[in-house]
Amino acid sequence: MPITTPPGSAPLDAPPGLKGLVVAETALGDVRGEEGFYHYRQYAAPDLARHRSLEDVWHLLLDGTLPDDARRAELADQLAPFRHLSPALLRALPAIAIDSDSIATGLRTALSHHASTLGLAPTMDCSADQRRHQALALSAPVPAIVAALHRIRQGLDPVPARTDLSLATDYLWMLDGSEPDPAHARAIEQYLILGLDHGVIASTFTARVATSTGTDLGSALVAALGALLGPLHGGAPSRSLDTLDAIGTPDRARDWVRRTVEEGGRIMGFGHAVYRTDDPRCVLLREIALGLGSELAERAVAVEREVEAALEELKPGRGLRANVEWYAAVVMASCGMDRSLFTPTFAASRVIGWCAHALEQAAEGRLIRPSSRYTGPAAPAPLPPR
Amino acid sequence: MPITTPPGSAPLDAPPGLKGLVVAETALGDVRGEEGFYHYRQYAAPDLARHRSLEDVWHLLLDGTLPDDARRAELADQLAPFRHLSPALLRALPAIAIDSDSIATGLRTALSHHASTLGLAPTMDCSADQRRHQALALSAPVPAIVAALHRIRQGLDPVPARTDLSLATDYLWMLDGSEPDPAHARAIEQYLILGLDHGVIASTFTARVATSTGTDLGSALVAALGALLGPLHGGAPSRSLDTLDAIGTPDRARDWVRRTVEEGGRIMGFGHAVYRTDDPRCVLLREIALGLGSELAERAVAVEREVEAALEELKPGRGLRANVEWYAAVVMASCGMDRSLFTPTFAASRVIGWCAHALEQAAEGRLIRPSSRYTGPAAPAPLPPR
Repeated sequence: MPITTPPGSAPLDAPPGLKGLVVAETALGDVRGEEGFYHYRQYAAPDLARHRSLEDVWHLLLDGTLPDDARRAELADQLAPFRHLSPALLRALPAIAIDSDSIATGLRTALSHHASTLGLAPTMDCSADQRRHQALALSAPVPAIVAALHRIRQGLDPVPARTDLSLATDYLWMLDGSEPDPAHARAIEQYLILGLDHGVIASTFTARVATSTGTDLGSALVAALGALLGPLHGGAPSRSLDTLDAIGTPDRARDWVRRTVEEGGRIMGFGHAVYRTDDPRCVLLREIALGLGSELAERAVAVEREVEAALEELKPGRGLRANVEWYAAVVMASCGMDRSLFTPTFAASRVIGWCAHALEQAAEGRLIRPSSRYTGPAAPAPLPPR
Repeated sequence: MPITTPPGSAPLDAPPGLKGLVVAETALGDVRGEEGFYHYRQYAAPDLARHRSLEDVWHLLLDGTLPDDARRAELADQLAPFRHLSPALLRALPAIAIDSDSIATGLRTALSHHASTLGLAPTMDCSADQRRHQALALSAPVPAIVAALHRIRQGLDPVPARTDLSLATDYLWMLDGSEPDPAHARAIEQYLILGLDHGVIASTFTARVATSTGTDLGSALVAALGALLGPLHGGAPSRSLDTLDAIGTPDRARDWVRRTVEEGGRIMGFGHAVYRTDDPRCVLLREIALGLGSELAERAVAVEREVEAALEELKPGRGLRANVEWYAAVVMASCGMDRSLFTPTFAASRVIGWCAHALEQAAEGRLIRPSSRYTGPAAPAPLPPR
């Protein structure tokens, strides 16, 4: 098949999967794969998860600094009204919850609907202050939306948000309608902090590409969510737990891995595109999971050891280790979450990072418009008569 | 501000806006900007719009060939059931239509909801046949959704699809509930054909990036739609008509352009990122618009001449000419469409192209995962005490 390229142009080829290609400059953070290190602004993300609240790290990403008491209170006041479901959203949620095939796709619809009730101007027509306000209005209700979808699908009424609680505690409160175990609330809070941002992975890149068209922030977030739902991205934690379930006990791990690799299957929960050493999210989440004292966590650690050993035998030198999804799933499950909530919970965190990236992209204001290479038969061919 | 890059890696910088960067190989078509030429598969797109039906070109993009009578009938049979609104969609549409700030954002929500009622498996778990079936199920109802949103917002009942009519005729039928002028139906059909695909512009790229995570096809399309809604992309035709309205009559054009350029504003409807000569879509749509005999078309041509002359004076050598949006708006308005329908009508066409790209990407099956460059203060900095 002859390849046709435009005359006079010198097309530049992106590496496969755009791997290693710098597509954005960002002050929001970085992932240093060789070092097993990632950071938000200038702070190590696991340090933030160990020592700070989700609200503080949200402020860091969105406004550039860790807040003092005054700024902390100010952000809480700004977020509070948006943590409740709007009347328009409450009207639409029952049909969305009941007819959607999952909470994750229901969230996609509900977030789109919520955004469309806010009268959002295109980001390119908004001031930075307006865009920041929109970011809060769009991100803050995501936990309430997820919890309401979860409850309605079980035949239960949504539980109204309690803004006297921290964001993470409130999320568990809205899911169950009872005061959560503080250890569970803190574990989920740490997971949410660890999940806020991680470079321009597909969903974040999607948010930036969409924003580059000047689209409204709601559209950019819905777009990013569409990318997140893929099993290779936000859908991975539940598949990791499927792996753990399929293996069952540590003694069965090596055989299972060997069989799966021989059949050409993926071992979900192991291996990472960037980290060549321990995934720092995995390290902290393993610690958190073990701290929760669940049988699942103990088993996950034992199985992890066997899977890593088996992978080292089968694919020596590849350094395929447990990734963030393996223990994200274990932490969420240990806190009583059904796996249908895994991807939506991840989304409740990452939406904050998408906003920060979208705001950065909107400030830049340049359309992202790449090229393709045509690989079909030579054009133009004469059109055959009908 | 020190720049931190991962040790051991040699980051490659994408050109600004990824301009000229080949991010995908595709057999679907190409845009040759220097020549003012674009094609679907091996056929010139304007030739297809002149001589073929939307259904035929849909078959060409999705299945690779122009259909014979048997294949044409087969596709029509496959599309027919999906041209109707499903009961689940009909239940949700009133709330979506009434509470959304526009038909365009309502379409985003409704398409998401429709997709979530279909139980779509992730594209990475589907066969090529399953993905093709999903493409039809997701694209075919878009005209019915747009028409229903339009009517409900006016307090009218949706008009059921008539599968005895062509797709384009049926669309106008569902909008108005009366038999459309055949000249209008053909003009809209030609516009829809011209809009099916145009390289990996932001929305199409978004569809491919989202698909690369293995996400379900509905998520990929909703993501693409989010990108389309930007004023620099699918939102452009209505802004072009705003320009024409603001100018009013040809004698006012030069002053208006001069003032706008001096104030640093954009002249929506003029200039294109790729075409350095006439935009071939613009050429055919101008002819179509004039063929409709509307006063608006005559005025658009006269104003176009003045705007181009003014731009040549103010920005000599830049070759800023009317683009597709200028006459897309005029054609749609001349067929009686309100400008709130412009972006959704474009979406009803482009969604077919997004599907074709998503299917191509899904067959490739590689995660798109670019990098970023960190531009903030050196990390890690010690975490300040709370």
